Amino acid sequence: MSVSKLRIGCAGLGRMGKRHALNFLERTPRAELVAASTPDDTEIEWAKEHLAPYGVKLYKNYDDMLKHEGLEAVVVASATAVHAEQAIKAIDVEKHVLCEKPLSTNVEISQQVLDAAAKKPHLKVMCGFSRRFDASYRDAHRKMTTGDLGSPSVLRSQTCDKLDPSGFFVAYAQFSGGIFVDCSIHDIDLALWFFGQDGKVKSVSAVGITAVEPDLRKHNDRDNAVGLVEFYNGKMAYFYASRMMAAGQEDTTEIIGTKGKVTVNAQPQINLVNTYDNGGVHREIPQHYYDRFEYAFVTEANEFTASCLENKPVPLKLEGAVQAVRIGAALQESLITGQKIFFEEDGSRANKSRL
Amino acid sequence: MSVSKLRIGCAGLGRMGKRHALNFLERTPRAELVAASTPDDTEIEWAKEHLAPYGVKLYKNYDDMLKHEGLEAVVVASATAVHAEQAIKAIDVEKHVLCEKPLSTNVEISQQVLDAAAKKPHLKVMCGFSRRFDASYRDAHRKMTTGDLGSPSVLRSQTCDKLDPSGFFVAYAQFSGGIFVDCSIHDIDLALWFFGQDGKVKSVSAVGITAVEPDLRKHNDRDNAVGLVEFYNGKMAYFYASRMMAAGQEDTTEIIGTKGKVTVNAQPQINLVNTYDNGGVHREIPQHYYDRFEYAFVTEANEFTASCLENKPVPLKLEGAVQAVRIGAALQESLITGQKIFFEEDGSRANKSRL
Amino acid sequence: MSVSKLRIGCAGLGRMGKRHALNFLERTPRAELVAASTPDDTEIEWAKEHLAPYGVKLYKNYDDMLKHEGLEAVVVASATAVHAEQAIKAIDVEKHVLCEKPLSTNVEISQQVLDAAAKKPHLKVMCGFSRRFDASYRDAHRKMTTGDLGSPSVLRSQTCDKLDPSGFFVAYAQFSGGIFVDCSIHDIDLALWFFGQDGKVKSVSAVGITAVEPDLRKHNDRDNAVGLVEFYNGKMAYFYASRMMAAGQEDTTEIIGTKGKVTVNAQPQINLVNTYDNGGVHREIPQHYYDRFEYAFVTEANEFTASCLENKPVPLKLEGAVQAVRIGAALQESLITGQKIFFEEDGSRANKSRL
Amino acid sequence: MSVSKLRIGCAGLGRMGKRHALNFLERTPRAELVAASTPDDTEIEWAKEHLAPYGVKLYKNYDDMLKHEGLEAVVVASATAVHAEQAIKAIDVEKHVLCEKPLSTNVEISQQVLDAAAKKPHLKVMCGFSRRFDASYRDAHRKMTTGDLGSPSVLRSQTCDKLDPSGFFVAYAQFSGGIFVDCSIHDIDLALWFFGQDGKVKSVSAVGITAVEPDLRKHNDRDNAVGLVEFYNGKMAYFYASRMMAAGQEDTTEIIGTKGKVTVNAQPQINLVNTYDNGGVHREIPQHYYDRFEYAFVTEANEFTASCLENKPVPLKLEGAVQAVRIGAALQESLITGQKIFFEEDGSRANKSRL
Repeated sequence: MSVSKLRIGCAGLGRMGKRHALNFLERTPRAELVAASTPDDTEIEWAKEHLAPYGVKLYKNYDDMLKHEGLEAVVVASATAVHAEQAIKAIDVEKHVLCEKPLSTNVEISQQVLDAAAKKPHLKVMCGFSRRFDASYRDAHRKMTTGDLGSPSVLRSQTCDKLDPSGFFVAYAQFSGGIFVDCSIHDIDLALWFFGQDGKVKSVSAVGITAVEPDLRKHNDRDNAVGLVEFYNGKMAYFYASRMMAAGQEDTTEIIGTKGKVTVNAQPQINLVNTYDNGGVHREIPQHYYDRFEYAFVTEANEFTASCLENKPVPLKLEGAVQAVRIGAALQESLITGQKIFFEEDGSRANKSRL
Repeated sequence: MSVSKLRIGCAGLGRMGKRHALNFLERTPRAELVAASTPDDTEIEWAKEHLAPYGVKLYKNYDDMLKHEGLEAVVVASATAVHAEQAIKAIDVEKHVLCEKPLSTNVEISQQVLDAAAKKPHLKVMCGFSRRFDASYRDAHRKMTTGDLGSPSVLRSQTCDKLDPSGFFVAYAQFSGGIFVDCSIHDIDLALWFFGQDGKVKSVSAVGITAVEPDLRKHNDRDNAVGLVEFYNGKMAYFYASRMMAAGQEDTTEIIGTKGKVTVNAQPQINLVNTYDNGGVHREIPQHYYDRFEYAFVTEANEFTASCLENKPVPLKLEGAVQAVRIGAALQESLITGQKIFFEEDGSRANKSRL
Repeated sequence: MSVSKLRIGCAGLGRMGKRHALNFLERTPRAELVAASTPDDTEIEWAKEHLAPYGVKLYKNYDDMLKHEGLEAVVVASATAVHAEQAIKAIDVEKHVLCEKPLSTNVEISQQVLDAAAKKPHLKVMCGFSRRFDASYRDAHRKMTTGDLGSPSVLRSQTCDKLDPSGFFVAYAQFSGGIFVDCSIHDIDLALWFFGQDGKVKSVSAVGITAVEPDLRKHNDRDNAVGLVEFYNGKMAYFYASRMMAAGQEDTTEIIGTKGKVTVNAQPQINLVNTYDNGGVHREIPQHYYDRFEYAFVTEANEFTASCLENKPVPLKLEGAVQAVRIGAALQESLITGQKIFFEEDGSRANKSRL
Repeated sequence: MSVSKLRIGCAGLGRMGKRHALNFLERTPRAELVAASTPDDTEIEWAKEHLAPYGVKLYKNYDDMLKHEGLEAVVVASATAVHAEQAIKAIDVEKHVLCEKPLSTNVEISQQVLDAAAKKPHLKVMCGFSRRFDASYRDAHRKMTTGDLGSPSVLRSQTCDKLDPSGFFVAYAQFSGGIFVDCSIHDIDLALWFFGQDGKVKSVSAVGITAVEPDLRKHNDRDNAVGLVEFYNGKMAYFYASRMMAAGQEDTTEIIGTKGKVTVNAQPQINLVNTYDNGGVHREIPQHYYDRFEYAFVTEANEFTASCLENKPVPLKLEGAVQAVRIGAALQESLITGQKIFFEEDGSRANKSRL
């Protein structure tokens, strides 16, 4: 008797690519990492040491990897700029796709992935919003779904990075789509998850500052930003994103229902240790999002694999990933123009100055 | 040897009036409550039992109380609608004044109190923002002032009431000035305190919903609202106010500096008890703002008294109280019109549609 | 109409004496501090400034104070060595007595106070165990009393002082009765409160070390000690006392019932502030027991006063204070001898070596 | 190029056996689970479904499994009664051994495993104390090792199970060695880890009750027990074990040094979610020790594997496992006899009645 495993390849071996590759190699029992691709020589060297000895075939060219004999699925973990292109290519040659977020920083390009996937309904195409796979967020969603806490009405959520004193995020801002598309996209996805994915946006407005990195303005970005999103169904969400946290990663969410609320990570901590000294009581918190969401990524890999092998729907719909980019891009626009943006119920821009 | 005490009268004996009266009677050693006034018969009955036996003279008419022999100061704790009028009358007859917040729901009327006080610089006139006297907020302010946490740049603050199932707050909304003037005024005051009282507002925008009480719309109010305030000095604040909390009063603030942050009440609790049963771990939280801020009011009474007796400045400037009403009223306007409001640096309205 | 107040005198104006005097002067509306006594010149000077101006008569001699015209009650806050003597003298001349804990470090002398009080049932005689008046402990007791958490069966409690680098507690150990009588007496009292005051002790055993102050051994004391108390009714308690805490005062209790438990102060904190910096999240805790229990002492003063004025029972029985000393002294004996001590149900020592 | 993996077999497929088998199968990349043995038919059925399809050979007889071609190591996860026998058999035929705790409930039999291992220093033999592999405990140990918190002097630790209303633990008590050997063994191991493994015990004493299951007395056991251990090096530890927790598993530890302390799990929680409803704030906690320590077991499997493959010392010494049983058995004896037990520095029993 033998067990068939999902033969998957990993596109991109940068920071997240390495993690996805190792997760599929070591922590996804039903998957077999058979290939990996990267144009980067340093990454190839890393892969020769960490992947090749376990039977993973390495490719410098993504298109070549797609032709790997027996390949069934691809995890796209390359630079954001090529997410959509690589995802579409994989779909075209009949591979299942797990794509890192965002599909693209551009709404239209994101939509192209959705369109490509729509033509191949037998393929599993998923955009990896890691929080959907996090045990705490899932528990919060389950509790909110029981109805005991009433109707979810207000969502507050933040994605706040520890300050990187190297200022790397300034250069990065050139390609990131801006802080709302890069960071708040997770919070926006949570709003869609908790409020219902077909909630229609009525207005967005945003304000931001550059408290530590004025140079961000060159790339139309800010280091701290707050956004407000109003939905037609009488719900609202507000988001805070920051590149300036001193203590570490602070991704916190609260979902407020008419009869109660749930909070996720309102009291951040890296583990169960508290230290007492003559300065008081201290605890440490996660430094980066992977410290916080490591196991969510493992769950994501396993559940995507199960969906492919068992031909069942992926846990989150691709439409939401496009909608999240749409909202994020509108918030970013509002952040830069200073103008509040209104939408009609059909999604088109509204002119509210008549109000 | 004898010690002179501040002879004070209390105007209004409603919910807060009773508390102020008792605080000055029993918990302010350097003050002597000599008089109290209320037009309300039920309140007079209460005062006959709780105040009169201790030598407090009762008046049905505020003007009569102002003529009480030897009266030096007045605490104005009547209905908001008469705050300003009573404060100004007291100033006119040379009494120190501690006035409950807000001075008025109307900016111009608030300004009149400030103008009256300006003519009598020897009098102590203070608007009681209770959080300024709370030990936790003071500790947070002290920590932020050291500079170790960098420059305060982002402030998040919320004033959220426990849901009153009687819906009393619907009728109350007719006179409250709206949720931003009634609730968020405290958070606005905190922004002025932590950011510097002379911060100039650049824009305000707000969104709100009626999740539990649609009838609030009749009074141009909402039961949940989020507001954004942008300052010209590169700082920003965002506020959440709600009438819908299930567990109790949730007044939480975080002040985020460029090198660290402080939080106040991020993990609310009524005391130091946790209960463990087969449903998990439980704790209770304050039910009303007085549960949370009782001792702040006592400190306020004592410090106001000390300022009067020792002729030293009151702990918070009256200008801030007017500025807080101005910002609160603008947020409320934005909430109702849906429009973002811009200001010039001189405080006048700007027309930003040209942007 | 006039209100009669309890005319009380304060014996002793050391650290706790000053606090009691001020509490009765300023924070106990129904009491009038009319007198205070201390043989100490420095304390007299303090009193001339802080008490005399408010009409408090000062005495260098306790016996003289007892003759103060109209004196109705005495708070005994002098050195432990004279607690019992002063309490008995006051009882003898028909004064109500609030005595600081412990009545005495000696069981027989403690019993003498109880005997004296028994002869004057019309007098209110109370030993001040402050935690009985603390809002959190009272809430815990109320929750345990409902029965929802089952029968209280195991109690863990600790009284742990912040390390005093001056080593003052070494000299103090000569008179304190030892760490179990000085510190754990509070925890023992809690066991009697939660388990029922007539619980009969079956055995006690204790172990201790001198981790920071070996000199304590000269006074038959330790700087860290753990004690176990077994009751005949199938319950048990264990106590930890320390002079070595780095962060501050850590007085923590948990009461474990057959269906649940309550904890008090399992997560100590001085206020609601948390600070985040690049070392993590920090909070401060109370430095001394008065930081933690200040309001409990105020409540104690007020409730004792009400008992006297209204001739109703004091909130805690004097028998418990003697029983607490008995258990504390046995623990201290076990700590020093290293031997476990057994008791018969009638309270006499048992010889268990036959087991 | 190929990578050699450790070929391991799993003895026993009960609750913990299943977990170990799956951990070595799926979550230990450098190991290959090649065999498993159990005499139990139900467990064999489970293994046919979950292990056999992945190439694991199943044996009904442990001795047969030991002969499995190429087998290099064994994880002993069978009933405690056969731990030692199976471990010794494996050592005899040159297998590395990871043995579940305790080696045996009997000190002499535990020592036999140590003796057998001593003869084969080239083999890796480890007793799995899972907390040694838990990220929080490791962080606590690291912090204590820096010296910043002074010398670790007092350790408090508890292992407390959620009440199993089926009362299964009564029957289980017949074979468990008693609550100190079954539960507190983990806490004892922590004391050896934090205090130094060669600490010599000076005395032990214990007290216990049967609050929920009087029938435990038939098996010389209790449902709640507290134990005190005094060491010759001036340190002490105290332990609480319970079968009666209402909310879930509560394994909490604090290590108190002369300059500070660390706590592990002083505020238990299953995840980062808090729920707010009109009863207050709620959180859930782990229900069983595997909920709490799942990832510690995974780390244990991986580190044991690395030690075998790289021929480096296992992370914890086998001597400690015998010492832990010795202390646990002495505590259990003290619990039942009611007598305090004293030891000479050479480990022999002392007669302290002469003191």
